[in-house]
Amino acid sequence: MILKLGYDILFELPAPVAMVALLNVHPSRFNDLRVPDVVRTEPVVNVDSYLDSYGNRCTRFVAPQGLIRLHGATEINDTGRPDPVNWSAREIPVQELPSEMLRYLLNSRYCEVDRFSAIALELFGGVTPGWSRVQAVCDWVHSKVTFGYQYARPTKSALDVYTERFGVCRDFQHLAVTMCRALNIPARYATGYLGDIGVVVAPSPMDFSAWFEVYLEDRWWTFDARHNQPRIGRVLMATGRDASDVALTTSFGVANLKEFSVVTEEVA
Amino acid sequence: MILKLGYDILFELPAPVAMVALLNVHPSRFNDLRVPDVVRTEPVVNVDSYLDSYGNRCTRFVAPQGLIRLHGATEINDTGRPDPVNWSAREIPVQELPSEMLRYLLNSRYCEVDRFSAIALELFGGVTPGWSRVQAVCDWVHSKVTFGYQYARPTKSALDVYTERFGVCRDFQHLAVTMCRALNIPARYATGYLGDIGVVVAPSPMDFSAWFEVYLEDRWWTFDARHNQPRIGRVLMATGRDASDVALTTSFGVANLKEFSVVTEEVA
Amino acid sequence: MILKLGYDILFELPAPVAMVALLNVHPSRFNDLRVPDVVRTEPVVNVDSYLDSYGNRCTRFVAPQGLIRLHGATEINDTGRPDPVNWSAREIPVQELPSEMLRYLLNSRYCEVDRFSAIALELFGGVTPGWSRVQAVCDWVHSKVTFGYQYARPTKSALDVYTERFGVCRDFQHLAVTMCRALNIPARYATGYLGDIGVVVAPSPMDFSAWFEVYLEDRWWTFDARHNQPRIGRVLMATGRDASDVALTTSFGVANLKEFSVVTEEVA
Amino acid sequence: MILKLGYDILFELPAPVAMVALLNVHPSRFNDLRVPDVVRTEPVVNVDSYLDSYGNRCTRFVAPQGLIRLHGATEINDTGRPDPVNWSAREIPVQELPSEMLRYLLNSRYCEVDRFSAIALELFGGVTPGWSRVQAVCDWVHSKVTFGYQYARPTKSALDVYTERFGVCRDFQHLAVTMCRALNIPARYATGYLGDIGVVVAPSPMDFSAWFEVYLEDRWWTFDARHNQPRIGRVLMATGRDASDVALTTSFGVANLKEFSVVTEEVA
Repeated sequence: MILKLGYDILFELPAPVAMVALLNVHPSRFNDLRVPDVVRTEPVVNVDSYLDSYGNRCTRFVAPQGLIRLHGATEINDTGRPDPVNWSAREIPVQELPSEMLRYLLNSRYCEVDRFSAIALELFGGVTPGWSRVQAVCDWVHSKVTFGYQYARPTKSALDVYTERFGVCRDFQHLAVTMCRALNIPARYATGYLGDIGVVVAPSPMDFSAWFEVYLEDRWWTFDARHNQPRIGRVLMATGRDASDVALTTSFGVANLKEFSVVTEEVA
Repeated sequence: MILKLGYDILFELPAPVAMVALLNVHPSRFNDLRVPDVVRTEPVVNVDSYLDSYGNRCTRFVAPQGLIRLHGATEINDTGRPDPVNWSAREIPVQELPSEMLRYLLNSRYCEVDRFSAIALELFGGVTPGWSRVQAVCDWVHSKVTFGYQYARPTKSALDVYTERFGVCRDFQHLAVTMCRALNIPARYATGYLGDIGVVVAPSPMDFSAWFEVYLEDRWWTFDARHNQPRIGRVLMATGRDASDVALTTSFGVANLKEFSVVTEEVA
Repeated sequence: MILKLGYDILFELPAPVAMVALLNVHPSRFNDLRVPDVVRTEPVVNVDSYLDSYGNRCTRFVAPQGLIRLHGATEINDTGRPDPVNWSAREIPVQELPSEMLRYLLNSRYCEVDRFSAIALELFGGVTPGWSRVQAVCDWVHSKVTFGYQYARPTKSALDVYTERFGVCRDFQHLAVTMCRALNIPARYATGYLGDIGVVVAPSPMDFSAWFEVYLEDRWWTFDARHNQPRIGRVLMATGRDASDVALTTSFGVANLKEFSVVTEEVA
Repeated sequence: MILKLGYDILFELPAPVAMVALLNVHPSRFNDLRVPDVVRTEPVVNVDSYLDSYGNRCTRFVAPQGLIRLHGATEINDTGRPDPVNWSAREIPVQELPSEMLRYLLNSRYCEVDRFSAIALELFGGVTPGWSRVQAVCDWVHSKVTFGYQYARPTKSALDVYTERFGVCRDFQHLAVTMCRALNIPARYATGYLGDIGVVVAPSPMDFSAWFEVYLEDRWWTFDARHNQPRIGRVLMATGRDASDVALTTSFGVANLKEFSVVTEEVA
């Protein structure tokens, strides 16, 4: 399967601002790209690229005063298969986890693991460890939280989601990630493209989406507490501890979003 | 100057627990060590060592049920000079910061940068940028927050410190770090040994201490909103985004601290 | 001046629910009413009326399953004069306050006075006490917080408003009320009708509004950190410690708001 | 049974401060008093008495600069019977509650009912309504929260207790009160004398204690999530929405507590 990917984002800036964008496909998918994946700006500005401490490809530049458009378009090969499911994937005891996984057990801004120890144990302590337990977390979050774009806010943390029970993609994943970490299961936040392939087309315009990854057995696996079903055509862009690490764009000053559109669809 | 360093920590565990300890001197000080710096346990257990994503040397092991003692002792060469002060060190505009510094501008568990943007600007937006501004942050935190061991609690964040105005070392630094990041100045949390050299001896027993580092001009500089004066004989152990990243010991299960003592003094 | 007042609210209920409505004009304005002020329901249900501990007239009833419409319409005499301004109104030292004012110095759900002691003192401790100080609080809140309907959320407290700097009417008043109480000035939350008389007509449809009252000299005075200018034609409905006490409707079960309209205009 | 009651409290004040004390026995127990119950001060200052909006007897005065001692001693008749238990006491549907009970269903500073709706329903929605359900709340809080004086802090709310699981008397009751209100059961915070009659004497010195009251059937009943067993010799002093309403002493300025002792014991 071939997927067409693209985005078009317009900001208005009252003054020049340094920006960082995580708008590239994740390095783990570079070999699947059929077309170079380049972040373009209008007006054209000098753009630098680097890998952050999580291994994401980042783009940084200084946006001049006025309007700046970020856009990109590429094509990528995809297996066309849904997210893998493996009910026999085991939880790895902390002492056997690779060292580089340990940071995915710790607190982060939107994942207050330290405040969920008792709650997570009460809800999921009795569930069969491994894939079943992570799936139980997803089922719980999916059934308890109601989706709505009007519930988005930048400072909302897992504890807010747990008490308010309303949110957007990111909020579902933050709560699930926090529950997993509180159970000593490494979990990280993920963002990327997610289209409508194989599902009923949602009435709202396409958007980037968030999901999360969990380390079981010997690798990371994709989970999605928002949709809670295996999906076809996810294209990973970035992973990190939570949304703070992998914002699509981070502006170190005032930047007003004016327009935003995303494309992700199968090439016929 | 030669410093003698050591610690002795006793835990009681109702069941075996995986633990991670950041009890080694920081790799940047390895060349100053006069005696090997080894984390020892009683009973002796298998210990692994690794560098985390911040470059700290970490020790991991499985502590068996019952009592476990962690201890270590070493000696290190030190310049004997107080923390450097450089009033001409400049703030680096975000666009000119090395990429690896950008993560020290972001949110973390105990540093809610996203909730301090306006507050930091109101308090320090008008202060001369650079060393003066960071020192103004330290002066403010130092004068506004009252120290007391009884005010420690594991979940306390910068916003809690800002509203409660009481805390321990870690709380002073979290608030100062958050203010700096909200001003687009890279800042990170630091822990290590800090003795009484050159200051009036405090009545309370010695402890590990926390301070913070700020990136100005072309390097990291030591600041300490708790003591707020240049000190002699700091020995860095670890740096990270906040206390969550650099806990001296992190236990993935129940571990009750029974005894704790630290030595850091000049060798005559 | 004669004001025409009215509202029309439609709820949909999946099951019968007990409701309390604060939809009447405040008892202090009863003598100004030209037309009886009655809360009507469709379908007609049995309605009880009582005064709560703040002296507000409340209506309670059991709403049956399905749709229920609450509506009312009345006319009231008004002086037609703007909110009184009295720069010489003094702050009353706590020891001289009437006892019944003391509760308006305490904490409430959305007004965390205990977390604002230091902040309020730093911002307003040096301002001339009395009317000037309360006006300084209003000026500050008005200039620092940006209005937007999309920023409303039921759990938002004064501390949230202080850090986020976005909100609706209620949020402006909660922050101002909290600052006043932290300065030992009795302050209470107020709701009522507020039309467009004497001001540029806002593009958005009319709504009920929130403001607040402060006890200075020997009486309560109206302040409004949202609009921050004396207004003509406010008609008070209820006062309380914060929005939790004076919600227009409180449902003890699920009630989905379907339609909502308010009328308040001068009778020609 | 006759109980001897008394307290002795010493404050040091850097400047004169207005204070309110809730140190009297509750008006509902006036008829049981054998000795006048008077709040005395050293030095003697002018003291006023009033009833607050909850019906508590309050004392207010201006404490001069320096040391001030508050003390009182009285004797009271008591049934000598433990707190009544009535497993058949019914929950009253909101629509049948007396109007004056409705405020005990609402939010208050330390009882964020709005953030516990889902949590309370998940934990206790399936429990038999009435006494059983309130007892289930007490059992849960009692078993999940660990007591310790070092966990006290003035700003701690029910949500903090729910996530931290450590606290003092007041914290246990705040969490239980919040759960009850979220279940539409009127609940209020209570403070008073509680001695060691009929129980193993605790090693710590006697103190005032907190418990809570719940409205079931046709009256208020005593519950205590901290001790969670019927006790002999409670003497009520005050009730309110939460600890903010019924602080033993509220100081409108700096007042440092120097000494504190309480007596409550059976007269032989």
